[in-house]
Amino acid sequence: MSDNQNLLAGLRILDLSRVLAGPLCTRPFAEFGAEVIKIESAPSGDMVRQFSKLRGERSLYFIQQNLGKKSVCLDLRDPRALQLIKDLVAVSDIVVENFKPGTLDAMGLGYETLKTLKQDIILCSISAMGQTGPLAAKPGYDTIAQGYAGVTAMIGDPNGAPSIPCIAAGDVSTGVHAAFAILAAVYHRDRQGVGQHIDIGLLDVYYNFHEINVHQYSGSAGALNPRRSGSHLGYVCPGGAFKAPDGYMIIMGFAHHWKDMCTAMGREDLVNVERWNSDLKRVAIRGEVIELIETWLAGFASRDAAIAHLEAHGVPVAPVLEVGETLEHPHFKARGTVRTIHDPLAGEFAMPGNPIKFVGREAASPAPAPTLGEHNETVLTELLGRSADEVAALVAAGTLVKKNL
Amino acid sequence: MSDNQNLLAGLRILDLSRVLAGPLCTRPFAEFGAEVIKIESAPSGDMVRQFSKLRGERSLYFIQQNLGKKSVCLDLRDPRALQLIKDLVAVSDIVVENFKPGTLDAMGLGYETLKTLKQDIILCSISAMGQTGPLAAKPGYDTIAQGYAGVTAMIGDPNGAPSIPCIAAGDVSTGVHAAFAILAAVYHRDRQGVGQHIDIGLLDVYYNFHEINVHQYSGSAGALNPRRSGSHLGYVCPGGAFKAPDGYMIIMGFAHHWKDMCTAMGREDLVNVERWNSDLKRVAIRGEVIELIETWLAGFASRDAAIAHLEAHGVPVAPVLEVGETLEHPHFKARGTVRTIHDPLAGEFAMPGNPIKFVGREAASPAPAPTLGEHNETVLTELLGRSADEVAALVAAGTLVKKNL
Repeated sequence: MSDNQNLLAGLRILDLSRVLAGPLCTRPFAEFGAEVIKIESAPSGDMVRQFSKLRGERSLYFIQQNLGKKSVCLDLRDPRALQLIKDLVAVSDIVVENFKPGTLDAMGLGYETLKTLKQDIILCSISAMGQTGPLAAKPGYDTIAQGYAGVTAMIGDPNGAPSIPCIAAGDVSTGVHAAFAILAAVYHRDRQGVGQHIDIGLLDVYYNFHEINVHQYSGSAGALNPRRSGSHLGYVCPGGAFKAPDGYMIIMGFAHHWKDMCTAMGREDLVNVERWNSDLKRVAIRGEVIELIETWLAGFASRDAAIAHLEAHGVPVAPVLEVGETLEHPHFKARGTVRTIHDPLAGEFAMPGNPIKFVGREAASPAPAPTLGEHNETVLTELLGRSADEVAALVAAGTLVKKNL
Repeated sequence: MSDNQNLLAGLRILDLSRVLAGPLCTRPFAEFGAEVIKIESAPSGDMVRQFSKLRGERSLYFIQQNLGKKSVCLDLRDPRALQLIKDLVAVSDIVVENFKPGTLDAMGLGYETLKTLKQDIILCSISAMGQTGPLAAKPGYDTIAQGYAGVTAMIGDPNGAPSIPCIAAGDVSTGVHAAFAILAAVYHRDRQGVGQHIDIGLLDVYYNFHEINVHQYSGSAGALNPRRSGSHLGYVCPGGAFKAPDGYMIIMGFAHHWKDMCTAMGREDLVNVERWNSDLKRVAIRGEVIELIETWLAGFASRDAAIAHLEAHGVPVAPVLEVGETLEHPHFKARGTVRTIHDPLAGEFAMPGNPIKFVGREAASPAPAPTLGEHNETVLTELLGRSADEVAALVAAGTLVKKNL
């Protein structure tokens, strides 16, 4: 069995990105064996090095998003640092950045300049609202893009405030859209010899989550107006989160599953009764349906007992697992959905596995996430041909910074 | 200005997928000029052709996920249909499928067989829980994977049932993870001459949305137990959805924005007061902070007036737009975040734009989504070299099916 680390060998990314969406774009490249050189700004580097410092000064958050990358830490106000970046562009295939739109140009590193350094360079710019349009300068918080995208409005109690999900669906998805765009540009470059400037906005990605809402509203001229529907899907019933004796569970007892649901509850009388015999009718009396099911669930000793009973009757069900319940779940361990990191400084802890799996290739652990400036010397000497003396002078001048954290 | 339709020219995908995650994996290929041949099962094709039939019998849902693809509709129980699929594999680069795990093997189209038809074929299998592990056979509903992934638990009221988002974050993100994996395999094939079998599970993708929750729980041995926090972020304050006179809005008045927030409210006295002067302290009295802000917001004539006032003070804000409010928004129109489709049967309607933008390349509209079996003849004659008589015989036998919808 070979491993997965040589899949993208030969590609080099100069990664100017910070925080989340950018680092999540470049992480899959690092996981599959591309060389990712992360530029961090002195004195303290990527700001997420301050998050989740649960093991001394080492950030588990930084580790999670930056596995397998190299770190070069530079004082970006120093013209010599800018020259190093330009020299790195000249030997890279791809540049990734997620500064506020306009910043890269202001630094003298706009796409037109990059092309003079490397004719077929691929520049991927990631931002909250995109590089263009009247909202382009808005602050880059996930929730700002989510609110505009009509996504927040589709989550939570329809009679109250919307809910803010405590997950990074937008940033993760934006990162992988950017990663796909980069490989599409590489495919094209390999055949046509030209680079690209890619413009990925969190807003556009969030908006693309609407698989049905936009066309339903538009196609019906507003007669259909999709809205959030709380703990249950809005168009089928039963389908959603139900209260069990010790937690919540998902039950999808709609359409042809309704018959199995009724049989499981010993309520075969409800299969064909006029008020209950279609999803449309059950949606209209959803409160009654939910109460019936939750009252019945209360009779079980546990959520797991209810799940086993419903599964035996062929009804699609799942526990609403809390994060802490996932870590030792046999499926998560068997598939590597969860993985254990052995970090030289932070030790052992769990994080999500690489969601992209190649059958018959071992999901080899990439190298550890770098300490700040860990690869200053190797990158400057081996890649840029600087002498040890030149590197020492840059260190002495404070242009190159290194910290073991 | 060139368009974006030649970026992936030269790639051919045989697309056996249905419904959502699979079609969303292949749509970006079709949008960038790859040839995507969608196999639909007779008599009625992809089941989503029954969704969102807002313009006669034509499905807006099908259109949205299948722009630019070709459709070949086959009676899959007929051995001649199976032979056609095998002949198509032999001339394709990539096969995508999202049957229940095991189904492709049972059809006689497993990866080992595909390799005998095309030595370097790339097979991408998409499923809910992945191809392996004890939960692999679970039914493929989004909510089932979401419940197991610990994602549902992170959304909604912490004192009540979790919320089910009315968006397809999981399917969209799974599709693009699969699309990235395919291009990584193409990159490797171009250099090493070998194919791959890719295994993408919705569960793994959902789990990867936890940018912080898993490592926080694990790294603290459960002392930190991230939970859903309703309409507001759990670790900063104020940061979340607030009630405005006519709708909801996002306010991110945390950290250094708190000072601007106080100034905007004319409450400079709260900037440094002991109980209110850090996010940690404000999180502890979140109810008071929210009440203060919502009472103040109630004095505005409208949400937009409150947004303008807060923006003038430098506080990050956004409206929680309803889907219907996005369609005519100038930013959405300027960037193509929303796009208008001109479908030959359904006419004009809006759907999300392609979230991947290449600067200086026009986002050309791909060809319309195909009618059922629209490309039966062209694919069989031009690509597989079948004669018109052979095609006619297959039509007469009911092996090939075609309907104008």
